[in-house]
Amino acid sequence: MAKRSGVTVPAGFSAGGYHCGIKKDGKPDLGMIVSDRPAVAWAVFTDNRVKGAPVLLSQKHLRSAVVNGVVINSGNSNVMTLNGMRDAERMADGMASNFGWKRNQILVASTGVIGEPLPIEKIESGINTLAPALKATGGLDLAEAITTTDLAIKEKAVRIQLGDKKVAVGGAAKGSGMIHPSMATMLAFVTTDATVTKPVLKELVKRSCDQSFNRISVDGDTSTSDMFMVMANGASGAPMIDKPSGKLYSALLDAVTSVSTDLAKKIVKDGEGATKFVTVRVTGARSVKDADLTAMSIARSNLVKTALFGQDANWGRIVMAAGNSGARFDPEKLSLKICKAPVFTNGALVTAGWESRVAPRLKFKDILIELDLGAGPASSEVWTCDLSYDYIRINADYRS
Amino acid sequence: MAKRSGVTVPAGFSAGGYHCGIKKDGKPDLGMIVSDRPAVAWAVFTDNRVKGAPVLLSQKHLRSAVVNGVVINSGNSNVMTLNGMRDAERMADGMASNFGWKRNQILVASTGVIGEPLPIEKIESGINTLAPALKATGGLDLAEAITTTDLAIKEKAVRIQLGDKKVAVGGAAKGSGMIHPSMATMLAFVTTDATVTKPVLKELVKRSCDQSFNRISVDGDTSTSDMFMVMANGASGAPMIDKPSGKLYSALLDAVTSVSTDLAKKIVKDGEGATKFVTVRVTGARSVKDADLTAMSIARSNLVKTALFGQDANWGRIVMAAGNSGARFDPEKLSLKICKAPVFTNGALVTAGWESRVAPRLKFKDILIELDLGAGPASSEVWTCDLSYDYIRINADYRS
Repeated sequence: MAKRSGVTVPAGFSAGGYHCGIKKDGKPDLGMIVSDRPAVAWAVFTDNRVKGAPVLLSQKHLRSAVVNGVVINSGNSNVMTLNGMRDAERMADGMASNFGWKRNQILVASTGVIGEPLPIEKIESGINTLAPALKATGGLDLAEAITTTDLAIKEKAVRIQLGDKKVAVGGAAKGSGMIHPSMATMLAFVTTDATVTKPVLKELVKRSCDQSFNRISVDGDTSTSDMFMVMANGASGAPMIDKPSGKLYSALLDAVTSVSTDLAKKIVKDGEGATKFVTVRVTGARSVKDADLTAMSIARSNLVKTALFGQDANWGRIVMAAGNSGARFDPEKLSLKICKAPVFTNGALVTAGWESRVAPRLKFKDILIELDLGAGPASSEVWTCDLSYDYIRINADYRS
Repeated sequence: MAKRSGVTVPAGFSAGGYHCGIKKDGKPDLGMIVSDRPAVAWAVFTDNRVKGAPVLLSQKHLRSAVVNGVVINSGNSNVMTLNGMRDAERMADGMASNFGWKRNQILVASTGVIGEPLPIEKIESGINTLAPALKATGGLDLAEAITTTDLAIKEKAVRIQLGDKKVAVGGAAKGSGMIHPSMATMLAFVTTDATVTKPVLKELVKRSCDQSFNRISVDGDTSTSDMFMVMANGASGAPMIDKPSGKLYSALLDAVTSVSTDLAKKIVKDGEGATKFVTVRVTGARSVKDADLTAMSIARSNLVKTALFGQDANWGRIVMAAGNSGARFDPEKLSLKICKAPVFTNGALVTAGWESRVAPRLKFKDILIELDLGAGPASSEVWTCDLSYDYIRINADYRS
C-alpha cells in the first residue's frame, strides 16, 4: 500500500504525478502539490540572466500573501519559446480553476529541453485528470513526475518537536546535470506543517539554500529553470514562528536544512555519469568567502574530477584548482588529506609512502578531500561528483 | 636538410632539444634558446596563486636588464617539490656557465607532472651536452622538446618590414590541457630580431597576450607553470622602438600578436581529446568586459562543449551559458547563428527550418558560434574546443 512520503509527510498536503504526453517514453511528466488550507511560501530561483517563463511567473506569484499549490512539468523547460509566459499562466490557471483558487496562488515550474513550445493542451488536459486524484500518499508519484535524466527518485522527510506539537518537513527534488550553485538544474519542493510567517520563511529559505543546494556542483553550469521552494501550512497546530531567531526558528531551520542537504547530496550522487560522491572540505581559510571559493574551485575542476574518475591520486590538480580560486594563502602552508590519509603538510613536504596509503582509498565510492590553507580560521564544505565517459555520452546528444 | 623555423627564424637566435632522461618514452625533454648578443625579454606568467619554482625564479630574473636565453624541461613541472627553487637555480646556473653569463640572464621553465622532484643531475648533464649543439636550425627540435601531451608541434614565424630592415618574429608553444586564460598550461616562446626597449617590450607582451593566449580555453583550468615570453635582440639592425605607439610599434605588435594568435589557436586545435575547433564570437555587448565574459562563459561550458562533440544543435545551452556570464542583456534581444546559419533572432523567435540548415554544418571540424546580445556596441572573440570521451581518457590517469 502506498505510504506518505516526501512532500506529503507533513499534514494537509496532497500530491501526485501523471503522464500527460510530453515525454516520448510514456513516463510521468506532470506533478502537483497542494495544501488543503492556505499556506505561505517562499522560493529562490536561478540567477541565470535567461530565466524560463515559469520562473518569472512564480517570482510574481510569490508576492501574493497565500500560495496553495505548485504545478510542475518535466520534459520541456518552457524557456525561450514564443508563447512561454502565456503557457505558464495557462498551467497556473488550469490548476487554480480545479480548486477554486486564484491564478496567483499557484507556482509553476518546468524542466527539460530549452526552446521547444510547450504542448499546453496536453498539459491542461493532464491537470484536469490529475487534480481530483491528488492524495496524501502521492509524494512518491510527484517525486517521480518531476525527473528528467535522473536515475534515482529523490525524497526525504524528517519530524521534529516544536513546542508541544509534532511537525514534519518533507521534500522532493530532481536534478542530475547543469548543476552548479546559485541554483542548479534542479527543482526542489519542501513542505512543512509548521506555522511560520512569510517574512520569516523568506529568511529561512535563503539560509537553508546557502547551506545545501548552493554547495553542490556537478558540471559548473547553471540552468535557466532552477527553483527551491518551501511551503508552510500550519496544519501541525505548532506555535507561530514570527521572528528569524530563537529556539523554534532554529529547530525549523535545522529541519529544513537537513531535508535540503539530503536532497542536494542525492542530486550529486545522481550526477550525470557520476561514479563517485566527493566531499571537498576546506579549512584554515582567511575568510568564509575564501573557503567557499577554494572548495568550489576544486569541486568544479574538470582535471580534478577526471583524476578521481580514474582513481588517480593526482594531488597537484587539487593544489592547482585551489590556486585558481582567488583565495589568499601561502602554498608552503598547505596541508592535504585524501580519504583521511595525509598527502602533504606545509606545502612541499610530502609524507613518505603517502601514495600506498591513498591509492586503495581512491577505489571508494565516497571520496573526502580535506585541504587546510593554513591561513586563518574559516572553513567550507561542498559536494560534487567525478567526471566520466558517461557524462559525455549523456550530454553529447541529450535532445534525441 | 634542417631549415630555420619557429624561434630560430629571427637572426641571432639558436636553439635545440635533447632527451636528458626525464620522460620514460625517450622523447626529447630538454630545450634551450639563446641569443648570440644581449637581448631584452619580458614575459607574463600564470596568475595561479600556486606558482612553480621556475615561474618564481624567472619573474625575478626578468628584473635584470639583459636576458640571453631560456632553458626548458618537459615531463616534470618542478611545482610543490622540496628543493624546487634550488633545482630551478641549478638549471639557470648550468646554462649560464656554458656560455659565460650570469644566472639572472637566464629564464627557466618546466612543464609536466606536479609534485615529483626534478632529476636535476640528469638535467645538468643534458644542459652540458646540448649547449654546444644549439644551432640556427634548431627551432623545430626546441619546439618538440617542450611538448608533453601535445599531439602536434607548434611553431610559427612571420617577417615584416621595419623602416628599411627586414625583421622576423618566430615562436614555439606547447599545451593541450589545463588551458584557460590568464595563461594556460602552456609555454610559449617568441623571439624577434627587432630592436626594442624593455619597457616597450613589456607593454607589447601584455597587449599581445590579451589578444591571443588569454582568449583560449580548453578545460577551464589554469596551470601553475604557464609562461609567455618574448625576447628581442636587435640583430636585424632595425630602428629602435622606444615608445609604445607609432607605426613601427604597431607593426611589431601586430607581428608578435599574429605569431601568438597562431600558436594559441594551435594549442586549442591540439586540445586534449578535441575533435572540433570552436570560435565563439559575441557582438552587441554593452561593454568589452561583458563581451569577454559572455564569450568565455560559452567557451568553458561543459554542456555546450559536449553538445558540439555530439554534433547536437542544442542552442539552449549556449543561451544558458550566456545567461550565466554575468553580462547584462535582455534575453528577448538575443540573436544566434551557428556556422553562419541563423538559429533565432530577437530571443524567442526561432526561424522556421533552422535545424535542417544547422545540423549538417555541425559535422564541420571548424565551428563558428555567433551570439549578438543586442545590448550595445562591444564585441569579443575566443577559441575553444569540444569535450570528448578522449578528454576523459587522457585525464583520468595522466600520471601513469
